[in-house]
Amino acid sequence: MDLPIQSVELDIPKPNLNDLRSDLDRFKEALHDAGYPADIKLPYEVLETFSNVLREQNWSCTTVIRNNEVTAILPKGTLPLGLAVDVGTTKVAAYLINMDDGSVLTRQGAMNPQVAYGEDVISRIHYANHTSGGAKILQSTLIDTLNRLVEEMCASTGNSPGSVVEAVIAGNTAMHHLVAGLPVKQLGFSPYVPAVNESLEVECARIGLKLASGAKVFLPPNIAGFVGADHVAMLLSTGAAESSKNVIALDIGTNTEISLVTKGQITCCSCASGPAFEGAHIKDGMRAAPGAVERVWIAGEDIRVRTIDDAKPVGICGSGILDAVAELLGAGALDSNGSFRPGHPLVRAVDGKREALLVPAGSSGSGQDITVTRKDINEIQLAKGAIRAGIDVLLEDAGLSADSIDEFIVAGAFGTYLDISSAIKIGMFPSLPLSRFQQVGNAAGAGAVQMLVSKRQREKAASLAVKLNYIELTTNKDFRDIFFRGLLFSIT
Amino acid sequence: MDLPIQSVELDIPKPNLNDLRSDLDRFKEALHDAGYPADIKLPYEVLETFSNVLREQNWSCTTVIRNNEVTAILPKGTLPLGLAVDVGTTKVAAYLINMDDGSVLTRQGAMNPQVAYGEDVISRIHYANHTSGGAKILQSTLIDTLNRLVEEMCASTGNSPGSVVEAVIAGNTAMHHLVAGLPVKQLGFSPYVPAVNESLEVECARIGLKLASGAKVFLPPNIAGFVGADHVAMLLSTGAAESSKNVIALDIGTNTEISLVTKGQITCCSCASGPAFEGAHIKDGMRAAPGAVERVWIAGEDIRVRTIDDAKPVGICGSGILDAVAELLGAGALDSNGSFRPGHPLVRAVDGKREALLVPAGSSGSGQDITVTRKDINEIQLAKGAIRAGIDVLLEDAGLSADSIDEFIVAGAFGTYLDISSAIKIGMFPSLPLSRFQQVGNAAGAGAVQMLVSKRQREKAASLAVKLNYIELTTNKDFRDIFFRGLLFSIT
Repeated sequence: MDLPIQSVELDIPKPNLNDLRSDLDRFKEALHDAGYPADIKLPYEVLETFSNVLREQNWSCTTVIRNNEVTAILPKGTLPLGLAVDVGTTKVAAYLINMDDGSVLTRQGAMNPQVAYGEDVISRIHYANHTSGGAKILQSTLIDTLNRLVEEMCASTGNSPGSVVEAVIAGNTAMHHLVAGLPVKQLGFSPYVPAVNESLEVECARIGLKLASGAKVFLPPNIAGFVGADHVAMLLSTGAAESSKNVIALDIGTNTEISLVTKGQITCCSCASGPAFEGAHIKDGMRAAPGAVERVWIAGEDIRVRTIDDAKPVGICGSGILDAVAELLGAGALDSNGSFRPGHPLVRAVDGKREALLVPAGSSGSGQDITVTRKDINEIQLAKGAIRAGIDVLLEDAGLSADSIDEFIVAGAFGTYLDISSAIKIGMFPSLPLSRFQQVGNAAGAGAVQMLVSKRQREKAASLAVKLNYIELTTNKDFRDIFFRGLLFSIT
Repeated sequence: MDLPIQSVELDIPKPNLNDLRSDLDRFKEALHDAGYPADIKLPYEVLETFSNVLREQNWSCTTVIRNNEVTAILPKGTLPLGLAVDVGTTKVAAYLINMDDGSVLTRQGAMNPQVAYGEDVISRIHYANHTSGGAKILQSTLIDTLNRLVEEMCASTGNSPGSVVEAVIAGNTAMHHLVAGLPVKQLGFSPYVPAVNESLEVECARIGLKLASGAKVFLPPNIAGFVGADHVAMLLSTGAAESSKNVIALDIGTNTEISLVTKGQITCCSCASGPAFEGAHIKDGMRAAPGAVERVWIAGEDIRVRTIDDAKPVGICGSGILDAVAELLGAGALDSNGSFRPGHPLVRAVDGKREALLVPAGSSGSGQDITVTRKDINEIQLAKGAIRAGIDVLLEDAGLSADSIDEFIVAGAFGTYLDISSAIKIGMFPSLPLSRFQQVGNAAGAGAVQMLVSKRQREKAASLAVKLNYIELTTNKDFRDIFFRGLLFSIT
């Protein structure tokens, strides 16, 4: 363990008429007696209250020290806690950590409330730039949610938010800037540069996060406007960054960030894969909730589905639509352009538009047919085309063929549930032996937890961020061709 | 000059599709090219806006650097300014400084608006401790006044508050804590210890001071609950602290702080001299404004007065009441207890109470008699008794007699106007040759200006504060006797 904080129990001599030292002087001397440097600092957030806190605690306290600063003065015997957060564009995952041994006390998820102001980062940046105080609104609505998650996690484990002394928040660059209160205007215009790439430490109080008075939040470094700290966290926690093999590591979301690790070099890019895999822009799409079709099998004319929690089907989530497309392709119901083949037994026409029926009204929980339309296929084509193009550009840049990939790491909530064979069937991933694929879940969150409890992991993140080469796809001369090729279903 | 800030003109390469570095990276590299360290920091207040600022200024700017931090990014060619403030319990004095050469551009004074919440520090601490949000109210009302002074001084010199990049605020310990937002509760209870004695640097934005985005305010060190940074500033600017002679230096105000310098040692104390010298608690008292009696001469039965601006007399200010008491004593109208002598030609009885008539109704601007009452004499006795007792305790502690004082420095607004012979006549000051006295005006303000433009002066203040011995008069065994002796007019 190389925790970024230490804690020490102190008993401080009270002031009296024969000992008129200032509160700060007597506090520092007690710390010095306990073996800490004489020049230790109390940041403003702690100074604002510490005289009252020392008296309320009758001059007996657990003092939390971080580098050369006091970040919290807690009642004696308090267990210092930490908060790790992965802020996704759509979802937020929070972890409450025991800062004595680094263990996870509890975890909790929530929707990112910024969704109300735009479903992707571009529309949120637009909101921030075109609404007076927009960035502040986006910041505070998210921070409110984090404060609520902290309160709930603390309540459920019998702790107080005031004993949370350190935080790490990982997110994409836009989330990072909005959380930290950094300018986002320049993220909304070409050439889409971040205000800040390097890692930051910000006082929690400044961004409205209600933890211990002097608690700091560590924000890991970004790579580019569309490759953020969450990708760094993912590369860190999966070990991909340190692999000596050829590794592709990607985090599928509204934006999909992809890294290729080869010969000690890491190159990354970001592709706008859209929200189809989160169920958005799909006619019967829904997020992964009970009743969502998550698996589809076709044998002949027989279509079978599995839903989350085995509830009556009410819609299709990301992994379900991916399966559906793969199976329709395999059954010959779709051609390589993504058009439904007229006359195929699985294809019907409604109002002159072709579609496939997954669940008839009679079996559905909504009393309505659940279908896959040409437009749905199109959304999936765009998403998979963007992801495959990103992979191919990275491989081409490194002069590698797809089959030289030794490991293929798929992170992200959707990445956990997707069926790899389906992803290969539609050409989203190259056709490699399944054993080379790893589905690692919320690796960004895991990376945030690692950085919360380890200074070494923070340093690794910093050197990793500097080392990463970034390819901007919008200016890549080959991207357009590769993307159009990727739209088709014929590649594998 | 050893200014705490430096400024440099920068032209920064704009981002484009072939140069996707973050704003921070390109900004730092431009600074590095200009000869500054690569690890220079941008504090949160600057990061919050710098991307927009750089673009507004078309990537061409004057950058202000302080230690290893960027504190302002100004339009190219802007002159960086500084703000020095002496916050007295009653009055505020502000100075606008050219941070290129340290010259004073302009100065302006105002009443301390906290007066509305209590006229002395004790009543303000009481207000802070017993009114919800009281300390915040006291802080913000004062900061509002400082912001107004900055705006007015900038407007009158053709500058912008955004180009003020550094500030120094000196005040007594209570003013210091209230300005900085530090806890004051413990200042209101015995043993009256400060939260913080050492010097502080606080981001101006955090305390509501509207200067350049990253501007810092330096708050010089305090000595004790009732000897503050303003006393340190005074000792610094008068050179008293470095004298090899025996020096008394005092700053007369609602509290009077006194230092004795002898053999390289400095010992100080604070006495509650009350607001009589500011015209308060005196029947016809007023502050030093046009029409205030500021000088009094008595020859036989003839009383002559001089008023400020030679306006018709409307009241008596501090120096006037001091003169009046001294002259009444000299004329034999008062005995050594401060009682009016019945039958003396200058003494009359009104409603059975004796008083002296300074200005008859016919000559006054108010159409009313201006008189000195027994109660007024009493207020002066308490004030001068406290000050004299402070001086005597310090001398006794050092084993010195009064006539071994080589220099006697009198600072403060009232200190500038008082007549030294009158002060000696009533026994407020020991009877020394007038040539040993120096009236130095607002020496605390001058010290604040010095610290604003000189790192060395800041360091001197720090070592001075550590070196100062403090005598707490309320627990001094001899103080009570010495104070009662000082109340009488018979000592000299």
